[in-house]
Amino acid sequence: MNTLGKILTLTTFGESHGPAIGGVLDGFPAGITVDVDYVRECMQRRRPGQSTVTTGRQEKDEVEFLSGLLDGVSTGAPIAFIIRNMDQHSSDYDELKELFRPSHADYAWIQRYGIRDWRGGGRSSARVTAPICVAGALATLAFRKLLPQLKINAFTSQIGPFKTDSAKDMEFADANADANPVRCPDKDLAAKMEEYIHELRKEQDSTGGCVTCIVKGLPAGVGNPVFDKLEASLAGAMLGINAAKGFEYGDGFESAAQRGSQHNDAFCMDGSRITTRTNHSGGIQGGISNGQPVRFRVAFKPTPTIGQEQHTVTVSGLETTMAAKGRHDPCVVPRAVPVVEALTALVILDQWLCGARQE
Amino acid sequence: MNTLGKILTLTTFGESHGPAIGGVLDGFPAGITVDVDYVRECMQRRRPGQSTVTTGRQEKDEVEFLSGLLDGVSTGAPIAFIIRNMDQHSSDYDELKELFRPSHADYAWIQRYGIRDWRGGGRSSARVTAPICVAGALATLAFRKLLPQLKINAFTSQIGPFKTDSAKDMEFADANADANPVRCPDKDLAAKMEEYIHELRKEQDSTGGCVTCIVKGLPAGVGNPVFDKLEASLAGAMLGINAAKGFEYGDGFESAAQRGSQHNDAFCMDGSRITTRTNHSGGIQGGISNGQPVRFRVAFKPTPTIGQEQHTVTVSGLETTMAAKGRHDPCVVPRAVPVVEALTALVILDQWLCGARQE
Amino acid sequence: MNTLGKILTLTTFGESHGPAIGGVLDGFPAGITVDVDYVRECMQRRRPGQSTVTTGRQEKDEVEFLSGLLDGVSTGAPIAFIIRNMDQHSSDYDELKELFRPSHADYAWIQRYGIRDWRGGGRSSARVTAPICVAGALATLAFRKLLPQLKINAFTSQIGPFKTDSAKDMEFADANADANPVRCPDKDLAAKMEEYIHELRKEQDSTGGCVTCIVKGLPAGVGNPVFDKLEASLAGAMLGINAAKGFEYGDGFESAAQRGSQHNDAFCMDGSRITTRTNHSGGIQGGISNGQPVRFRVAFKPTPTIGQEQHTVTVSGLETTMAAKGRHDPCVVPRAVPVVEALTALVILDQWLCGARQE
Amino acid sequence: MNTLGKILTLTTFGESHGPAIGGVLDGFPAGITVDVDYVRECMQRRRPGQSTVTTGRQEKDEVEFLSGLLDGVSTGAPIAFIIRNMDQHSSDYDELKELFRPSHADYAWIQRYGIRDWRGGGRSSARVTAPICVAGALATLAFRKLLPQLKINAFTSQIGPFKTDSAKDMEFADANADANPVRCPDKDLAAKMEEYIHELRKEQDSTGGCVTCIVKGLPAGVGNPVFDKLEASLAGAMLGINAAKGFEYGDGFESAAQRGSQHNDAFCMDGSRITTRTNHSGGIQGGISNGQPVRFRVAFKPTPTIGQEQHTVTVSGLETTMAAKGRHDPCVVPRAVPVVEALTALVILDQWLCGARQE
Repeated sequence: MNTLGKILTLTTFGESHGPAIGGVLDGFPAGITVDVDYVRECMQRRRPGQSTVTTGRQEKDEVEFLSGLLDGVSTGAPIAFIIRNMDQHSSDYDELKELFRPSHADYAWIQRYGIRDWRGGGRSSARVTAPICVAGALATLAFRKLLPQLKINAFTSQIGPFKTDSAKDMEFADANADANPVRCPDKDLAAKMEEYIHELRKEQDSTGGCVTCIVKGLPAGVGNPVFDKLEASLAGAMLGINAAKGFEYGDGFESAAQRGSQHNDAFCMDGSRITTRTNHSGGIQGGISNGQPVRFRVAFKPTPTIGQEQHTVTVSGLETTMAAKGRHDPCVVPRAVPVVEALTALVILDQWLCGARQE
Repeated sequence: MNTLGKILTLTTFGESHGPAIGGVLDGFPAGITVDVDYVRECMQRRRPGQSTVTTGRQEKDEVEFLSGLLDGVSTGAPIAFIIRNMDQHSSDYDELKELFRPSHADYAWIQRYGIRDWRGGGRSSARVTAPICVAGALATLAFRKLLPQLKINAFTSQIGPFKTDSAKDMEFADANADANPVRCPDKDLAAKMEEYIHELRKEQDSTGGCVTCIVKGLPAGVGNPVFDKLEASLAGAMLGINAAKGFEYGDGFESAAQRGSQHNDAFCMDGSRITTRTNHSGGIQGGISNGQPVRFRVAFKPTPTIGQEQHTVTVSGLETTMAAKGRHDPCVVPRAVPVVEALTALVILDQWLCGARQE
Repeated sequence: MNTLGKILTLTTFGESHGPAIGGVLDGFPAGITVDVDYVRECMQRRRPGQSTVTTGRQEKDEVEFLSGLLDGVSTGAPIAFIIRNMDQHSSDYDELKELFRPSHADYAWIQRYGIRDWRGGGRSSARVTAPICVAGALATLAFRKLLPQLKINAFTSQIGPFKTDSAKDMEFADANADANPVRCPDKDLAAKMEEYIHELRKEQDSTGGCVTCIVKGLPAGVGNPVFDKLEASLAGAMLGINAAKGFEYGDGFESAAQRGSQHNDAFCMDGSRITTRTNHSGGIQGGISNGQPVRFRVAFKPTPTIGQEQHTVTVSGLETTMAAKGRHDPCVVPRAVPVVEALTALVILDQWLCGARQE
Repeated sequence: MNTLGKILTLTTFGESHGPAIGGVLDGFPAGITVDVDYVRECMQRRRPGQSTVTTGRQEKDEVEFLSGLLDGVSTGAPIAFIIRNMDQHSSDYDELKELFRPSHADYAWIQRYGIRDWRGGGRSSARVTAPICVAGALATLAFRKLLPQLKINAFTSQIGPFKTDSAKDMEFADANADANPVRCPDKDLAAKMEEYIHELRKEQDSTGGCVTCIVKGLPAGVGNPVFDKLEASLAGAMLGINAAKGFEYGDGFESAAQRGSQHNDAFCMDGSRITTRTNHSGGIQGGISNGQPVRFRVAFKPTPTIGQEQHTVTVSGLETTMAAKGRHDPCVVPRAVPVVEALTALVILDQWLCGARQE
């Protein structure tokens, strides 16, 4: 249940306030040099406390590799790694023991298992995305050797009412999302998003947003035609991120309003290479990459934890109100950007390894 | 690769112009009476040639059960079934042997496997959804015994520019989608959609659309917290449908523009029962059902096969043009409605069986 | 539950007295020419009624391929096939409805599922091995292209008290097992086995036996070090055959009595090639092939259906006696030979495809 | 590849001389109290250095639980645990870098992955069975709540030429194997085994042996009829143990020489309960438990590492000789006893949870 992938599998574990979180990456190719600094950097990008738009909570995350490497090179054995939980203020959560927080997993979890870890969300905490970033970094390092031209780039494309023009998202395929704290490569929009987040923090409120991801350099022929489609694997992985509410690729929901004559991507020749004139499809046809850039968008809901007073009930069924204390992000979207990239790398490497056997 | 599910698995097979399509449903509970008429009815709803809005192609689909049943009752053994391919006009596809159809899987497939079945899309044909309808019908019959209050209802919520007000979609939770050919329970909208499709047919064009699905009666506690989330499984399954371009649940992409104070679903008491005042979440919190109706929407692109002349290339790399002959739907959305319902039943039964062991 | 394999998966279905049995082989490489006559021949070798040592029951098995082939060449899509059940004498089994046959699955099945198909064993019938032979033939055809030097050869190494000298089993690596009805390449022994079976038939009794399998030409490096070991996959597959009671590879149970100085296979050079002086290991070290021939043995119990009167109980819990009518083999071992070969081909192709991605 | 199980999955990781070994147990039922002392005790039973018959190497194994527990109770989240590698004498292995040890995985591994961890066997070390013991202890604790009558008891049934009479093995179903260092409940035989091991140690040699396991209290109806049979799962798991060469259940290889009239287990009534007069079947019929005790035996080869000089080759292909230094067991069998029990608990809990959903 806690495993992603078929050939390359990532099993994650850990709760926000237990001893450690981590993962086991199995099926990873042997002979890949693991640049630990790069892995740390990927993990740091997800970390809270990076700027004024994120929570002040500091997570001094250090990843420790336990297996699968010999002198920094992968051996083909499973790569296990852990990240100790350090900066835990469990007392912040004491009162949550008796409450169900609105739009959190508290209530659903207890209905599922009959018991729950109430400290900071437990297994349902967004902290579980840290191991995904570690594994995604490893997948990216594998691609540097196996498919060097591959480039996965995600960025914030919407925060609250401010959104990029999706028709122009391809312009940001090579942009540096980290140039500003909200990770939106459109500078003017980024400034408005940042201001909006500051405003929400004052109002003790939060906002949702979107992340767009663009994959360049993926050859045609990666994926599967039924059930294990490339888009289905990406959708399943992305909807696994905390707070994700939607996934679309290519023209996505806009396709619903389009005509075939408008949406179809006509084939043409680029010298001796077959290509398409447009890319409404988002780089995937019938479950398989077609050689065009893969483009998709993930929607996130507003952070459910807000400082405003909210109506809720106690575990014993009494109506009450609560206002979150603790330290929380008014907007998770900028921190979701590296998680989207990491999952993309994992999904594509899995499908790539899967298809590679045909060659 | 051609298998959906963990405990309850559906493996499908077959191409549009091979001898037969079919599936094997494994892990299905023993002791369920299979009402063959009901199964046939579910399959018929997906069938083309039902009305003026769909293709004139007739598929006299008859399902034959090969195993897993004894006197019409499931035995716990895998249930295999086939549907013979009858009304095949392979000659309609002769010229496709040398062409890649725009926005079809032809080109991607040959890049993946080095060989392709060019007759009507082969394994990439929408005909592969017929076995899904059979299996979904079986899952629905299982629920009639295991969880009789469960009700899965899907309908067309958008065709081209005509769309329902998503805030009011819950009003259609019990509507009969089949009251009109476009399967939209909003009568006025349905009339416009129907007219629009007729117009497109004349223009030899096609249109996209959306299907909304509402699940009532699902108890809280079904799903998993990480990776195998209920929403992730639904998203993965839905993106596996031919022509699907997006998935969202609850407020979906609209959540990106919302504030936490607006999106959060406050808990309250309904007598002695814990419930929520609103359902922006769409019935799922952190991967697990919360007892509210599950609500999601799937976007479909316009049918890629259109009668208008389109630019494309031959398999040997020459630019050319083509105009589809054959018989094709200007809009697949009404026929996708039963497929969405079938996959929903399969995904939920799989997750339900998975969690049931805890009880 | 009814699926074997990871990358190359075989899902089988069907009961002995339902409409058909069959399978779906998924993950099979594209571009393999399927010689239907060869497949039929493999299936025929398993068939009863071939000689005086097997049951007189005739199964005119004809395999029909439903998908995954285009003009006889695999396309990468799942290959589904069925074999209709023809020569069914269900009335032979009428009295079994009320009885549990000793050492059959009847009682265990009803405890598992609460319902059972009493006609001829249902899903527990040895007839379920026919689809395995079809799929194994396909795997063998794939190897003819992918790894032409691979040779899988199984034969009867024991029937009742008559057994080959396991130290000399390697001499039969290229023997034609089909030269006599018991499929034992040692002619003298074969004559005794045949006579023994005829004697048992007269006494309305049955006997167990062993099959030895030798795989030549498998390169070093196929398999996995933990859990998914080559020997573990072979053992799991072989114990899945009806009536199988044991599995051993290399020196097997004899190793328990050996010393390290006696069992260890010293490495040496054969020109510039690394090899071993002996092969007590049976071609596998730590889960991975080492380039030596793979050698293993499978034990089968006596056919449980015998004509002698046996004590048993009725489904309502009354003690009674029964004597089997119907037509049954006094010894299944010769017919298990092609099933062992088929499973070996499937397991090795799966592991080979799995590891091939590293290259 | 490093994962065992379907519903209850154990993924292990780690090499003998890396930072740590460990595992992730997923799908474990919520609400089970984890008695840490019991877990430690199970792990200690596998540990070397316990007596004069095992290696002098000390492994001060301490297990640390990282997730899935709240105040010592399982929450339904994956349970991750690690065991730090402490007493590593890597220098003992320095010369192995250039050699392939006879009957070790060294050569096969490098053919598989192109790189190997030469320190003490790396991932192929028997040390990888320590996490299995931890997970098996957890499974046993789960059964104490879910199925308290279940009793899994393994013991040494053969070492070198000394073996128990398998017809009497059931007498040891409740014996305390730990009463002597070789873990053989037959005292006289145990004394001979112990002496034999001491003798081999002096001769710098090693020996193989067998472990028998008996499971009492397993209800009828646990298992599956095809491929995922209870015996197939047990066989696959047992052959995954380092040095395992064979598996048999019930009368096993002896069945090959038996007649049906002798092997069949006649049903009879025990009051109102259906039972069998004999148990040649070993408690499993057609893949499913029949309510009788499950009985099976696993064969192990002699420890390949011996102090005597052996012929081998260097990694660069030169013939040479070697004599192991380091500290090694002349016989692994007594230490395999708790590993066999642990895997049995894991396999049965997995199958039990799998079937439990039917109830």
